[in-house]
Amino acid sequence: MRCRRCGEKAQIHLKRHHAAFCAECFLEYYSRQVHRNIRREKMFRPQERLLLVVSGGKDSMALWDFLLRENYRVTAMYIDLGIGEYSKNSRRVVEQFAENHQADLIVVDLEKEYGFTVPWLARQARRSSCSVCGVVKRYLFNKVALEEDFRVVATGHNLDDEAATLLGNTLSWQVGYLARQAPVLPSTHPKLVKKVKPLFTLTERENLAYVLLNRIGFVHEECPYSKGANSILYKETLNRLEEANPGTKQRFLTTFLKNGRKYFQAHRESIELRECEICGQVTTAEVCSFCRLREIAQRRQTEAERT
Amino acid sequence: MRCRRCGEKAQIHLKRHHAAFCAECFLEYYSRQVHRNIRREKMFRPQERLLLVVSGGKDSMALWDFLLRENYRVTAMYIDLGIGEYSKNSRRVVEQFAENHQADLIVVDLEKEYGFTVPWLARQARRSSCSVCGVVKRYLFNKVALEEDFRVVATGHNLDDEAATLLGNTLSWQVGYLARQAPVLPSTHPKLVKKVKPLFTLTERENLAYVLLNRIGFVHEECPYSKGANSILYKETLNRLEEANPGTKQRFLTTFLKNGRKYFQAHRESIELRECEICGQVTTAEVCSFCRLREIAQRRQTEAERT
Repeated sequence: MRCRRCGEKAQIHLKRHHAAFCAECFLEYYSRQVHRNIRREKMFRPQERLLLVVSGGKDSMALWDFLLRENYRVTAMYIDLGIGEYSKNSRRVVEQFAENHQADLIVVDLEKEYGFTVPWLARQARRSSCSVCGVVKRYLFNKVALEEDFRVVATGHNLDDEAATLLGNTLSWQVGYLARQAPVLPSTHPKLVKKVKPLFTLTERENLAYVLLNRIGFVHEECPYSKGANSILYKETLNRLEEANPGTKQRFLTTFLKNGRKYFQAHRESIELRECEICGQVTTAEVCSFCRLREIAQRRQTEAERT
Repeated sequence: MRCRRCGEKAQIHLKRHHAAFCAECFLEYYSRQVHRNIRREKMFRPQERLLLVVSGGKDSMALWDFLLRENYRVTAMYIDLGIGEYSKNSRRVVEQFAENHQADLIVVDLEKEYGFTVPWLARQARRSSCSVCGVVKRYLFNKVALEEDFRVVATGHNLDDEAATLLGNTLSWQVGYLARQAPVLPSTHPKLVKKVKPLFTLTERENLAYVLLNRIGFVHEECPYSKGANSILYKETLNRLEEANPGTKQRFLTTFLKNGRKYFQAHRESIELRECEICGQVTTAEVCSFCRLREIAQRRQTEAERT
């Protein structure tokens, strides 16, 4: 197969676009996609300061590399969640990349700064690690962005992530979540930072190709807690549908964003935002989810000290 | 495993309900489900005359048997679509059942009455057999219902059918179709008959159990044109999700009907209904889909006669 742009031997075949590219033209395609997403969805302006949440995985590492190459004013933020070897390896990858590229990096070490890890907290709270992890991450990146005066937080969510989330929310018609799923979540409160997903039209496979072609280090293992997670079941499901009908995944997400989502917006407006009584961050309850988890952690620690 | 109701040895296990039943109690469960659907969704009153569209498959045969047993005033309608052996076998099954039960049956023979079969018409119109078949069936059951003064048409659509249709419409966010999918489609025009699906909460497997336990004849083969159809891909997809999380299929459909569908209703109201210039049946265009197909058939027949 030949490259669609230059006619050289193709290295990557993108069935959903009926296209194949050589390495160089693939990177050009990738770059155009990300630039187009940033511009069309009004994610951020060229000179705007950005906080990028990185996990060490292929997607966030690809985006970090891309934003640096294109001279965006990006600072990365890594949260050490304390998930054994997985966290150690991913932290090493991220710190190494920052050093090699002399890139700005903020590391939040959950255990050092808050006295707990995600697996420990999940056990104490009798919740899944994934749900606790989500609360912790959302809280911390908003907090750090406010403290460091960033108006925009970017994440490496890709097409597979977004389509899987959409499928999960659709299978149980979680209208509130459906109303909120978008590549750009505007700031709806002075203390809530805008969130953007510049890779939302690019697949896992394309981000993998980007990091491999650019020889960017990334943590190859998946988080050990993701095994058996519904998000993986939904990704597999969508991959099977995609195999039968190439383009299904992208159509599912883009037609939702274009035709479906607006119908759920009515619901969204009924959510009232307030400030957490303990930490002052934005929440829909009296005390935010993070502070409720911290209370559980503090109680368990006090109990442990007593015995 | 023991029957949930009577404690006897269970014969059928319904994971999504965390229940197992012996044969007798399963039939009791089945009957309660159908009665509840008819009543709760206000499908029809006990003494109302019903037209039931039967294909000879397990679902419509189960519903026909059930409605007769429960003394509903049901007339069945079978459309001979001219799909080779499949149509011959299913017609035989339906006519045999009507004879055995002295049940009212209207047979429409497409070839005899209109001069074409579904496969021939699909080839002439260069459309899939499934899409032509859908147009023909929807047209004919509405027409026969109007002519014979039935206010309600019932079909044997089951939970798997409805969930698969919903998945298909959701994957491409077909808002118009999403607004119209429901177990009861009310009459929105004097010439449009109300349509109801009393089996919408019962799975294929449960309808199969009903016909086997009651020794009801049904056509075992699937329509030869259904192979490779997306509806089958979507059923398989939902079966895999169901296996991982029992109850997914029913939750997908019921939460849609309860929480999701209402958001699309705004769209629905913008559709304008009119009467077909040729046949007078209700349509959204000048000439209805059935008459457009008939025109193609007549043109081809005239061409064939000339040569």
